Amino acid sequence: MTNAALIEELKTLVEPGKVLTDAPSLDAYGKDWTKHFAPAPSAIVFPKTIEQVQAIVRWANQHKVALVPSGGRTGLSAAAVAANGEVVVAFDYMNQILEFNEFDRTVVCQPGVITEQLQNFAEEKGLYYPVDFASAGSSQLGGNIGTNAGGIKVIRYGMTRNWVAGLKVVTGAGDLLELNKDLIKNATGYDMRQLFIGAEGTLGFVVEATMRLDRAPKNLTAMVLGSPDLDSIMPVLHAFQSKLDLTAFEFFSDKAMAKVLARGDVPAPFETECPFYALLEFEAASEEIANDALATFEHCVEQGWVLDGVMSQSEQQLQNLWKLREYISETISHWTPYKNDISVTVSKVPAFLHDIDAIVEANYPDFEVVWFGHIGDGNLHLNILKPDNLSKDEFFAKCATVNKWVFETVQKYNGSISAEHGVGMTKRDYLGYSRSEPEIAVMKAIKAVFDPNGIMNPGKIFN
Amino acid sequence: MTNAALIEELKTLVEPGKVLTDAPSLDAYGKDWTKHFAPAPSAIVFPKTIEQVQAIVRWANQHKVALVPSGGRTGLSAAAVAANGEVVVAFDYMNQILEFNEFDRTVVCQPGVITEQLQNFAEEKGLYYPVDFASAGSSQLGGNIGTNAGGIKVIRYGMTRNWVAGLKVVTGAGDLLELNKDLIKNATGYDMRQLFIGAEGTLGFVVEATMRLDRAPKNLTAMVLGSPDLDSIMPVLHAFQSKLDLTAFEFFSDKAMAKVLARGDVPAPFETECPFYALLEFEAASEEIANDALATFEHCVEQGWVLDGVMSQSEQQLQNLWKLREYISETISHWTPYKNDISVTVSKVPAFLHDIDAIVEANYPDFEVVWFGHIGDGNLHLNILKPDNLSKDEFFAKCATVNKWVFETVQKYNGSISAEHGVGMTKRDYLGYSRSEPEIAVMKAIKAVFDPNGIMNPGKIFN
Repeated sequence: MTNAALIEELKTLVEPGKVLTDAPSLDAYGKDWTKHFAPAPSAIVFPKTIEQVQAIVRWANQHKVALVPSGGRTGLSAAAVAANGEVVVAFDYMNQILEFNEFDRTVVCQPGVITEQLQNFAEEKGLYYPVDFASAGSSQLGGNIGTNAGGIKVIRYGMTRNWVAGLKVVTGAGDLLELNKDLIKNATGYDMRQLFIGAEGTLGFVVEATMRLDRAPKNLTAMVLGSPDLDSIMPVLHAFQSKLDLTAFEFFSDKAMAKVLARGDVPAPFETECPFYALLEFEAASEEIANDALATFEHCVEQGWVLDGVMSQSEQQLQNLWKLREYISETISHWTPYKNDISVTVSKVPAFLHDIDAIVEANYPDFEVVWFGHIGDGNLHLNILKPDNLSKDEFFAKCATVNKWVFETVQKYNGSISAEHGVGMTKRDYLGYSRSEPEIAVMKAIKAVFDPNGIMNPGKIFN
Repeated sequence: MTNAALIEELKTLVEPGKVLTDAPSLDAYGKDWTKHFAPAPSAIVFPKTIEQVQAIVRWANQHKVALVPSGGRTGLSAAAVAANGEVVVAFDYMNQILEFNEFDRTVVCQPGVITEQLQNFAEEKGLYYPVDFASAGSSQLGGNIGTNAGGIKVIRYGMTRNWVAGLKVVTGAGDLLELNKDLIKNATGYDMRQLFIGAEGTLGFVVEATMRLDRAPKNLTAMVLGSPDLDSIMPVLHAFQSKLDLTAFEFFSDKAMAKVLARGDVPAPFETECPFYALLEFEAASEEIANDALATFEHCVEQGWVLDGVMSQSEQQLQNLWKLREYISETISHWTPYKNDISVTVSKVPAFLHDIDAIVEANYPDFEVVWFGHIGDGNLHLNILKPDNLSKDEFFAKCATVNKWVFETVQKYNGSISAEHGVGMTKRDYLGYSRSEPEIAVMKAIKAVFDPNGIMNPGKIFN
């Protein structure tokens, strides 16, 4: 069958007009937020039902056509990029919230539901969907599940994994599996729901997800603290964690803070300039808790771990303090940063960070390194800004060398080369720094179980 | 090689004296708390190191000898029973806590560490290991992980799964895999740690586990409430859950309460006799929280959902209220109960319970049904007491019929035939009531990936 005939057959499987092959669509739906690979899909198909997804997968098996899932396309690892003539399966028309149960605190969602849509729905019901991150306004749940999305509240609420009560998936073999049936306790063999979470669409498609909600947080309160050095951040985390249930513990360097303040639209938290800052958040549900927080702050100042600090007294102040952290990524994007999303266990963060700093400093003294991240869960965003005197190509060529050092250091510290962005294609060739040969062999064999013809997002995670 | 020669070879792989073949050892180590199968292992081997475990697995592969893991042998599904000449691998000598990290709040444990040993260790460090259940004094961590143990605090803390930061496993193929390296965020492909949790030793052996700890709970306070009917329990749960972070929400029927009170060593919570009771627990960390609890109690009384209630005012009272729930299982064991451990989603509990009651009542009106369980997470323990006029054999024969009705009802409600006790051999032939044909086929294929010769705990979960 010719390619054109195949696409004609594909059209019969979905509603009229739900297969696109025009150039702008191929370009738009063929990529995610990464810009490393030129999109080149054969077609974009928009199923509206689970049955249509199954039909597409059966068709793909029959003709050995590779499929790439597409959600909000906010991914940062090129897991949703179709660069090799694949057919993109986009879930934009499976975007309904189907069911809500107030006793179970669960919401049955189609995979195309936008993260923010679920957050807002939860809020309307007096509840809370706690997974939150910069792209929540456009990322889709199917993609969140595929990458096990994390973000800024993981220290308290965990990753997306924690909030998936049940999944309906269509495997690469075309089977519809109902995994876990939304149960809290279910000891009936392997929990395959967990395999699909974080599988980046390589095993099959998530076609329905039951998500759990939590109670709404009470009187969220933030503190921004300035520390004299990086090594002080850990005892600060430890001191607060011993007293309070933190909902966030973020950190950023003076360079990150300076760039955000230079925008002119966010007030400085206090006058003292410090090399490192921590932003922490908790529920000040009672006066006792607020007092505990202040006492811990004073203790940290006495110990010399904190030089200055501020606690939000209003919703407006809470928002402003958060902007200091949230605006960093967008602000530094003007410097064409080399970015890496890595993690180690929390206790190893200071030593790991010193090591990377020393390596970059020794080899590229003119590189400006901006650190920020979710230090409470060991997740660091390393950003190196392009010096003005280097061209983009020269800069990224040098960064390729840095990449190797970073991953070697990650391996030395038993860390992860991708904390929350996934592997996709951008980290694929570095997977061996985080996973052993036998592990990768087992992963490939597991893929073959669910996807015997290798049609599901091939070339992502591993080759 | 003869069987005797094989055992001689096995002896060379471990320390002297660490292979037992005497009849009392074969009997003791060949079974768990289930009594359905006669133990008949060939030998018991006690490794002391990971290398010895690997050597045993390689030996088993070479000679196609089946291995059965053995921990505290407190299992209730015969997953740790060796009834067919298997070699039992007992982890009693791999029982050390190897490492503690206060910043990461993690403890590196060998698989033979007793649950209570970890709980006590955490307490010494001012922290808390929250997975707790009746057999915590003898169950081992390796077994807890193998069955994804749950217990009485799941509503707040989740199952064992939530507390496993990293696993070292020896697969059925003899590979040592280090899964997840104790990271909080790690998006580098399939999370195979999750597969081993709840796999009942059918994929390989857990040889080391890094467990997370939580902060110690503050001023735990319990309430026991009496309700006029089962349908009132759900709105009570809902009302309290909207106001408080519950650490437990258990329930039991008047029949269970009567049997415990008849022992004479536990005081009645209050005078009013009610058909159903709920025991809930929360951290009364501030006066506000205690007041919220009392206000919610009053609201429930006004609505007619609660007839009477009591709140613990001391540690002693807390313990006494918990005894009302904790003593049930042991107390009713004198009536040789038929037991089943099942779950549905929380919102379906009342209808499900009514259905089962009606079925038993219609068919065996002389059977006394005692319900109790972790209603806050949908996990119900169904107990039917043996009438005095029936022999044990007659009773269990009739219960086999009940079994079928129970599982059909579980299936109708999309529930689980094993909430937290696992499948092992006792639920194996009923697995199809909870998992579909394609799911079971995929599970078998996944087992073949990790255990190509089928030597790891064969005949458990599925055949």
